[in-house]
Amino acid sequence: MTDLRDDGAAALEWAASYLERVHELPVLAQVEPGHLRAALPSSAPDAAEPFAAVLRDLDEVLLPALTHWQSPRYFAYFPSTASDPGILAELLAATLNQVGILWRTSPALQELEEVTLAWLAELVGLPAGLHGHLEDGASVGLVTALAAAREAAPGRRVVVCSEHTHSSTAKAARLLELELRTVPCSPSFAIRPDALDLSDACACVATIGTTSSASIDPVPAIADRCREWGVWLHVDAAYAGSAAVCPELRPLFAGWERADSVGINPHKWLLTPMDCSAFFTRRPDDLRRAFSLVPEYLRVGEDVVSLSEYGVPLGRRFRALKLWAVLRCHGREGLQAMIREHVRLAALFEEWVRQEPGWELCAPRHFSLVCFRREGSDEENEALLQRVNATGEAFLSHTRLDGRYVLRLAIGNARTAEADVRHAWELLRREALPGVRPGVRLQSDT
Amino acid sequence: MTDLRDDGAAALEWAASYLERVHELPVLAQVEPGHLRAALPSSAPDAAEPFAAVLRDLDEVLLPALTHWQSPRYFAYFPSTASDPGILAELLAATLNQVGILWRTSPALQELEEVTLAWLAELVGLPAGLHGHLEDGASVGLVTALAAAREAAPGRRVVVCSEHTHSSTAKAARLLELELRTVPCSPSFAIRPDALDLSDACACVATIGTTSSASIDPVPAIADRCREWGVWLHVDAAYAGSAAVCPELRPLFAGWERADSVGINPHKWLLTPMDCSAFFTRRPDDLRRAFSLVPEYLRVGEDVVSLSEYGVPLGRRFRALKLWAVLRCHGREGLQAMIREHVRLAALFEEWVRQEPGWELCAPRHFSLVCFRREGSDEENEALLQRVNATGEAFLSHTRLDGRYVLRLAIGNARTAEADVRHAWELLRREALPGVRPGVRLQSDT
Repeated sequence: MTDLRDDGAAALEWAASYLERVHELPVLAQVEPGHLRAALPSSAPDAAEPFAAVLRDLDEVLLPALTHWQSPRYFAYFPSTASDPGILAELLAATLNQVGILWRTSPALQELEEVTLAWLAELVGLPAGLHGHLEDGASVGLVTALAAAREAAPGRRVVVCSEHTHSSTAKAARLLELELRTVPCSPSFAIRPDALDLSDACACVATIGTTSSASIDPVPAIADRCREWGVWLHVDAAYAGSAAVCPELRPLFAGWERADSVGINPHKWLLTPMDCSAFFTRRPDDLRRAFSLVPEYLRVGEDVVSLSEYGVPLGRRFRALKLWAVLRCHGREGLQAMIREHVRLAALFEEWVRQEPGWELCAPRHFSLVCFRREGSDEENEALLQRVNATGEAFLSHTRLDGRYVLRLAIGNARTAEADVRHAWELLRREALPGVRPGVRLQSDT
Repeated sequence: MTDLRDDGAAALEWAASYLERVHELPVLAQVEPGHLRAALPSSAPDAAEPFAAVLRDLDEVLLPALTHWQSPRYFAYFPSTASDPGILAELLAATLNQVGILWRTSPALQELEEVTLAWLAELVGLPAGLHGHLEDGASVGLVTALAAAREAAPGRRVVVCSEHTHSSTAKAARLLELELRTVPCSPSFAIRPDALDLSDACACVATIGTTSSASIDPVPAIADRCREWGVWLHVDAAYAGSAAVCPELRPLFAGWERADSVGINPHKWLLTPMDCSAFFTRRPDDLRRAFSLVPEYLRVGEDVVSLSEYGVPLGRRFRALKLWAVLRCHGREGLQAMIREHVRLAALFEEWVRQEPGWELCAPRHFSLVCFRREGSDEENEALLQRVNATGEAFLSHTRLDGRYVLRLAIGNARTAEADVRHAWELLRREALPGVRPGVRLQSDT
């Protein structure tokens, strides 16, 4: 039998020791597809095993198949950090095992979610009084926003966005059978408000911090157009929204306070473990019209609206606990300090690229993402990225801008120090050396 | 600063001590709406607070606002248990903070999810070779199933179910703009296959273990009809599916192996903390046709299909780790023993009700849910339930069957012993005593 105290102490020690050595592990998993599947039994055991066996397999079997998101040299996609208060809050949330269905099934879950989302709104400078709730991710948030928009504007079946809008908008539109209309962008990958065609549109998705390049759509002008046409404006700030805890970055968020809904993912850049995606709206009644449905076995005559009436899921887990712990244990100042350091490091990396012959910057930098490439063909850049990632010393990802293959270095892990960014840059320069044939996978030479 | 080792030890001690005393706490939170909100500051602190402050507030502020799902006297809705291996696995999952987007972002996450779902399928007697993945809950699972069904049968816009089908089907149908067609039920609250009208239907949802009464739709006959009409059959076994780990209960699941998709929630009756909902399908290609969409920044030339191509979310957390830990640390025999004990206790309670004058059973019992009522009006039964729950000594819920208000006692917490069920019964009998005026809230007299 698992013992929460004894096995828990071992699990905690495993966790602490893992985080102490994570910087030494290859960032990108170096296994081939099927490696883990082949290493595991084909069925569950008949008799109970000790929890120690799980910990042993975590080291011996799972570890090589992990990509280490907690590594200070994780620079791919958008990095994230599960900070200690968030980790411990997940232990507590699992222990309490609250299931938020109705208010009464966990008043603490529902009210802490409401309070913590109000804290978050205040921290990032969103208006007071917004409805806020947590979802597992921004993809479900897009479904929530577009379903409410569709409900609020019967007969209008178009969603307007740009080619740089995150794919979750297209995915949600497909689910909701809405037509996607993509508008042209400026040279800095931002929606051109003059090109916006909002006829027949029920929703427009603007992004502050797109996935490809962290570009910023001109939200004030888009908000004007949306108001004119009566179109639901959703602002996707899944990655960058957390940066608004810093007042000096707030100008980049101009206009988002006028959005009908806003999404921010604390599990991306606000020290909170997966999964924790915040959804804010000034139009909660439209969400309820789209989603509320209370069957008899859930009718208890409460004068409280359940959070399940504002979205897809019926039951929710106690996600607010970790966000609450993170906001308290880092404090406004701690959150600001992390964001500022990441932006500083990104600016530093940007400057190194700018100064180095043979390299070029490929997009304006606003936050902690730098888009760049080595001179040469797309194939050469792709091969360079593969070589870099194959070393295990850092993990970067790519995108395509103006039709060209572009490298992305995103900073967002709290462990990342200047030395880690410097290491990534040296690694890139080393692997880009002449004489290295594109497409040839090198052994790490360190 | 939070220290994972020191604060972790305190959090672990809090967790262990909470679970030791949870049976002493009022099961249903005894606070009024707004209680917690009023007790918390209106904004996050500027400076970091110690994690000890979170633990202190957990005791002093949150505890009274919790409904204790881990209590052995939680008999409402469908009870659940977060068992120790599941709790510790959540600690580890938060520590690793894996984000499953593509296979490469966490090969361990994706392959462990595939392997563990295959284990689960084998444990409950589903066919080998099904595609399986985890979702946060069955509501998203219904969206997944119905979206695939809609995609697979263009032009057919009807979903067939019964009034006892879970409300998540109606919610998903609304989201997908499908028409809901409700078919008549037998006296035992099961779909009448002869009454099934599948014309224009793209999907039919049958349930093994409905929420109201745990009734069982005749899946073999429904599967015949669905095959005849080319209709997607989804079997919702969110609650009861876990019981199929016991071979002697398998006959109740006849026909589910023929379903196009099946949902089972290990976070309900299989010792796994929220959230963990299993989705199985024999038609993964139809899911991909409905959901797959891979933007450039996620194209890496892998010959592996990402789990995000089979459903709404893009990124997923490492949910499989807890299910894997639970299946290993309880083993097939441990899981069977728990299910059998719960079914035995429910049968015992059922027998007590049957033998007691003035009480009646209101639905056939198949699993661990007993539907019953006290003689008298709906109002009297509702008042009885309120009195019982107000004592804090047990928490039951209700439903409406054949138009009548019915009490539900569901057994599903691993801590529940015969004495707890006996206590609930004595409590019900005590609160039902003549002289107690309906609607008057009693102080607990124990």
